[in-house]
Amino acid sequence: MNSFGKKLQFSTFGESHGKALGCILDGVPAGLEIDESYIQSELDRRKPGKSEFETARKEADKVEILSGVFEGKSTGTPIAMVIYNTNQKSKDYSNIKDIFRPGHADFTYFHKYGLRDYRGGGRSSARETAARVAAGAIAKLMLREVGIEVVSGISEVHGIGAKQYDYAHVKNSIIYALDPEVEEAQKEAILAAKNRHDSVGGLSRVLIKGVPIGLGQPLYYKLDAVLADAMMGINAVKAVEIGDGAMSARAFGSENNDALRADGFESNHAGGILGGISNGDDIVLNVYFKPTPSIFQEQHTITTENEEVDFALKGRHDPCVAIRGTIVCEAMAALVVADMLLLNMGSTMQGIRKYYSLLERV
Amino acid sequence: MNSFGKKLQFSTFGESHGKALGCILDGVPAGLEIDESYIQSELDRRKPGKSEFETARKEADKVEILSGVFEGKSTGTPIAMVIYNTNQKSKDYSNIKDIFRPGHADFTYFHKYGLRDYRGGGRSSARETAARVAAGAIAKLMLREVGIEVVSGISEVHGIGAKQYDYAHVKNSIIYALDPEVEEAQKEAILAAKNRHDSVGGLSRVLIKGVPIGLGQPLYYKLDAVLADAMMGINAVKAVEIGDGAMSARAFGSENNDALRADGFESNHAGGILGGISNGDDIVLNVYFKPTPSIFQEQHTITTENEEVDFALKGRHDPCVAIRGTIVCEAMAALVVADMLLLNMGSTMQGIRKYYSLLERV
Amino acid sequence: MNSFGKKLQFSTFGESHGKALGCILDGVPAGLEIDESYIQSELDRRKPGKSEFETARKEADKVEILSGVFEGKSTGTPIAMVIYNTNQKSKDYSNIKDIFRPGHADFTYFHKYGLRDYRGGGRSSARETAARVAAGAIAKLMLREVGIEVVSGISEVHGIGAKQYDYAHVKNSIIYALDPEVEEAQKEAILAAKNRHDSVGGLSRVLIKGVPIGLGQPLYYKLDAVLADAMMGINAVKAVEIGDGAMSARAFGSENNDALRADGFESNHAGGILGGISNGDDIVLNVYFKPTPSIFQEQHTITTENEEVDFALKGRHDPCVAIRGTIVCEAMAALVVADMLLLNMGSTMQGIRKYYSLLERV
Amino acid sequence: MNSFGKKLQFSTFGESHGKALGCILDGVPAGLEIDESYIQSELDRRKPGKSEFETARKEADKVEILSGVFEGKSTGTPIAMVIYNTNQKSKDYSNIKDIFRPGHADFTYFHKYGLRDYRGGGRSSARETAARVAAGAIAKLMLREVGIEVVSGISEVHGIGAKQYDYAHVKNSIIYALDPEVEEAQKEAILAAKNRHDSVGGLSRVLIKGVPIGLGQPLYYKLDAVLADAMMGINAVKAVEIGDGAMSARAFGSENNDALRADGFESNHAGGILGGISNGDDIVLNVYFKPTPSIFQEQHTITTENEEVDFALKGRHDPCVAIRGTIVCEAMAALVVADMLLLNMGSTMQGIRKYYSLLERV
Repeated sequence: MNSFGKKLQFSTFGESHGKALGCILDGVPAGLEIDESYIQSELDRRKPGKSEFETARKEADKVEILSGVFEGKSTGTPIAMVIYNTNQKSKDYSNIKDIFRPGHADFTYFHKYGLRDYRGGGRSSARETAARVAAGAIAKLMLREVGIEVVSGISEVHGIGAKQYDYAHVKNSIIYALDPEVEEAQKEAILAAKNRHDSVGGLSRVLIKGVPIGLGQPLYYKLDAVLADAMMGINAVKAVEIGDGAMSARAFGSENNDALRADGFESNHAGGILGGISNGDDIVLNVYFKPTPSIFQEQHTITTENEEVDFALKGRHDPCVAIRGTIVCEAMAALVVADMLLLNMGSTMQGIRKYYSLLERV
Repeated sequence: MNSFGKKLQFSTFGESHGKALGCILDGVPAGLEIDESYIQSELDRRKPGKSEFETARKEADKVEILSGVFEGKSTGTPIAMVIYNTNQKSKDYSNIKDIFRPGHADFTYFHKYGLRDYRGGGRSSARETAARVAAGAIAKLMLREVGIEVVSGISEVHGIGAKQYDYAHVKNSIIYALDPEVEEAQKEAILAAKNRHDSVGGLSRVLIKGVPIGLGQPLYYKLDAVLADAMMGINAVKAVEIGDGAMSARAFGSENNDALRADGFESNHAGGILGGISNGDDIVLNVYFKPTPSIFQEQHTITTENEEVDFALKGRHDPCVAIRGTIVCEAMAALVVADMLLLNMGSTMQGIRKYYSLLERV
Repeated sequence: MNSFGKKLQFSTFGESHGKALGCILDGVPAGLEIDESYIQSELDRRKPGKSEFETARKEADKVEILSGVFEGKSTGTPIAMVIYNTNQKSKDYSNIKDIFRPGHADFTYFHKYGLRDYRGGGRSSARETAARVAAGAIAKLMLREVGIEVVSGISEVHGIGAKQYDYAHVKNSIIYALDPEVEEAQKEAILAAKNRHDSVGGLSRVLIKGVPIGLGQPLYYKLDAVLADAMMGINAVKAVEIGDGAMSARAFGSENNDALRADGFESNHAGGILGGISNGDDIVLNVYFKPTPSIFQEQHTITTENEEVDFALKGRHDPCVAIRGTIVCEAMAALVVADMLLLNMGSTMQGIRKYYSLLERV
Repeated sequence: MNSFGKKLQFSTFGESHGKALGCILDGVPAGLEIDESYIQSELDRRKPGKSEFETARKEADKVEILSGVFEGKSTGTPIAMVIYNTNQKSKDYSNIKDIFRPGHADFTYFHKYGLRDYRGGGRSSARETAARVAAGAIAKLMLREVGIEVVSGISEVHGIGAKQYDYAHVKNSIIYALDPEVEEAQKEAILAAKNRHDSVGGLSRVLIKGVPIGLGQPLYYKLDAVLADAMMGINAVKAVEIGDGAMSARAFGSENNDALRADGFESNHAGGILGGISNGDDIVLNVYFKPTPSIFQEQHTITTENEEVDFALKGRHDPCVAIRGTIVCEAMAALVVADMLLLNMGSTMQGIRKYYSLLERV
């Protein structure tokens, strides 16, 4: 239940304020060059404390590979990675030991398990997503070898939406904004909320380029369904769209269908997926993040003894969790596509015969 | 890849124009009374040809249980169900044997598998969802035993949205409308599109009531993530929301958090799920269906030989696939929740000790 | 829990005296020619009532394919197969409705599920293995395409062992004997036991030829471990050996190691598997079947009310379940190897790059 | 592929001469007291270098828990454990960098993955079993809470077999012998082989006591089948028996059946399992280990370039791998039974209703 994927599968462990967090990534083909500095650079994109738009908690998020790599290459065996926590301040949480934060998983974990690790949300903290990003970085290295690239950016903050999607701009933007023209307004919205001890939501847009036709396993491991699973499972996500998404439901069939020509599709309302299988066009996802529930205003809540209290949280939290969340979306998307890439092998007898006839010659 | 669920798992088979379709439902606890007429009544809700708002293809969708039930009760062994196809007209499709329908999975299946069953979309046809509804009916019987109910209805057709959600009205509405006041307008929108040989999209709203706190398995089999997977995997679905969904991303944290009082939550923006685990409140989903891609207007497309053609489809298709789709949403939601109900057992040592001490006394 | 395999997965349903039994086989690559007469011929090898060495119950075991095959070829979608029961005599079992047969699963099913289908053992009956043989026949067709063959035979009956393994003789022997020189003695042992209303055990030897080096997924889906799982899961099996098996434990390392030469191994004590991965040599399994528990002598037993009774069963049973069991061993072995064949694709980046570069040219 | 179990699942990582090895154990119910000293004591039983009957490689095998435990109790989240390697001597292996050791997985890994970690067998080394023992220790803690115990010992070394099974003696025996009367002879056999630079095989006998009736999930996750999988997957195991095992195949049905009386079974030929489900009696397994393939005599072998060489290995190896292997058998058996314990919950509607009615009162 803490694993994801079928052929490329990763399992994560760790809590916000425990010793360490990490993952085992299983199913990486042998012979992939594992560029550790690239993995670290991906973690650096997600790590907290880089700017005023993020939580003040500072973590180096230094990743260490424990297994599965020999002489710089994957060996086909599980790749374990660990990130030690260095800047946890558990005492920040001693005053909420017996209090449920509104909008948080505190309440549900306590009832499900009969106890909870109250320090920073324990396992339910988005801190766990560092492990996803580490695994996702290796998935991206795999995808690169066959010409697939996953990028993303923030297209909307508190309703302030991008008019253009400039993925090249993202790396220049501290909030990973897709549209330089609305970036300032988006930043202001975040800071204004932060100053009022509030938080805002946002929208991540993910683009997957270079996907060959045929990825996705019908009917219950469809590419779109698994992407939806992967995205909705990210902390704070409340909605997922493929292609035109909700807008499709307001269009006519004649508008929404993507006509076909000899050199490809005339449009891409479908977002690159038909019948759960990639159609060769760009895959497009919209992922909606709710505002961070941890705010510093007084709120109604209850204790573990069901007593009503009014309570204002203290501590360090992201004013807009979507910002760092978009890096996690990329990682999860890469892991899904890499899994599908492996699962797709063996779809035809012709492919199998060719594969094994090649093998014999090795 | 044609199975869904972990502890309650179903596998489906069958194509639109094959001999039969059906499923194996595995993991149903022993001792559940299997009311066959109830299963049939659920299938009747989904079956085609009931009105002008649906495809003209008439199928009795008569379900037959082949195993797993003895003297009216489940035995704990797999329940196989089969539905024979009776009204397939394969010759309807002989003219599209070599043509890809825009917006359809024809193109992707052909490229993935190197061949395709062109008759009515083969496996990619929504006809397969009859098997889901049969399995879902048994899941509903299970859930009923512990006080959980799954209902749904159509909240929007081609942008005409419900102002109220009257789930009691749904059974009186041929289009499963949630709001009697906009139902007429919604019907007109469907017929208007149909008369123009076009189609429209729609929105299904699903409500799950009576769910105990604690269902959902973090972190990679979360209740919301698996519901998203289940819904996005239904034919024609392009977006899924939990609770306030995309609206959450436009709210402040102070607005979106559901405050807690001794007798429950003060609001339900979260849609009944926190941290991937049910919080005891109603679970609410919005599921967006694109317009049926099979329309009868001339469209640009290509052949399997990559030749460009202009082509107008013939045949029998739903003008608004969301209508019958909402029944499938209910079924899938019931299957997800029933699976989570089983998986949740064993979350605590206390529960395990009690369970096995009870067992000994049997 | 009623499914087996990862990439090639089958799920079975059905009870001894229910309407029908069957399976869904998922993951068969598209484009495999499905020879229905071959599948039937495999079922005919397992079907009961062919001789005095088997149960007198006569079943045609006529298999019907319901899905997944179009114009004689697999489409990549699930292949469902059904076999209707025709010669069940449920009244044979009315007198054991409340009695547990010694050596049978009657007792454990009743306690696990709180009820049981007492007719012929219900789901626990070896009748279910017909579905395995049907699925296994398709696996064999797949394997044939890459040069892999699975054969088997009876090497021992009630301690009377083969001195030679003549797989070509098996098809001429009504008891699938491997050694024509001991076949008569083996037959006599069976009939002698049968005449005394008793039963005997036996040993099936399985040989898998032509397996390429590299099949098997370490460390928890090893080829030998999964074969052991598959064999031990067959009704009445109590021991499984790979290669020299138990004899290995009595040898010195210097005797048991298979030395390597440029043209292959000098011996095959390992039975074709090293570290859970095929080494290119013949794979050899020994599968031990206990004597049929259903005997017609009076035995001590109890009722469902825990009352002691002495009881002699009536009905129709195999005097040596190993005979027909060997066909099931072959089927299960074929399913395991075919699954491993698919899983192995994607073990190296080099293979993946080649596969997808081929794909692009299609 | 590096994970085992369904509801209680563990995933391992690590190689013989890498930085570290370890595991993630997922599905441990919340509220279990995690006694770290017990886990360490189990690892101490398996760790190398304790006597002349084992490899000379000395490893502290100090386990560190990284997650999933809070204030001494399991939280229901994944428990990660890591063991750093301290005494690897990779240069021992520089001379076999291009040579395949007979009887080893060197050959198969190289061919499967196109490269290999030659240092001590890499991932294929039995060193990985330390992670299994750590996970198994927690499974044992779980089982203890419901009265289940797993013990084992060595019943045979190089054909010298126990006449009695004295599990209490095992903890007093450096070779974990079950029979004090043959222990000396068994030790001598090991040392004699060792002195001749050879190795011997052995037999581990596992006993599982206190298992309630009903564990095991038919038909493809049977208790006996999964135990066979678990045992056969341990390094060097070549045969597995349940109960009387191979001897069953030589008995009459009238001898092999376990008669039932009001207070239990009259015998236990079945080894505690009927139809893949525990029958409440002791579960008994025999696990056969081949002699360690790493011997120091000259043997025929080949290089990675397929050149023939005669080669005598140097290094540090167990003269009888069964000794430490029996601890691994216990661990794997405990993990299987604990998984079945969790899976069995939810077998009946009655149990589910009771469980959830209890839950409401919490």
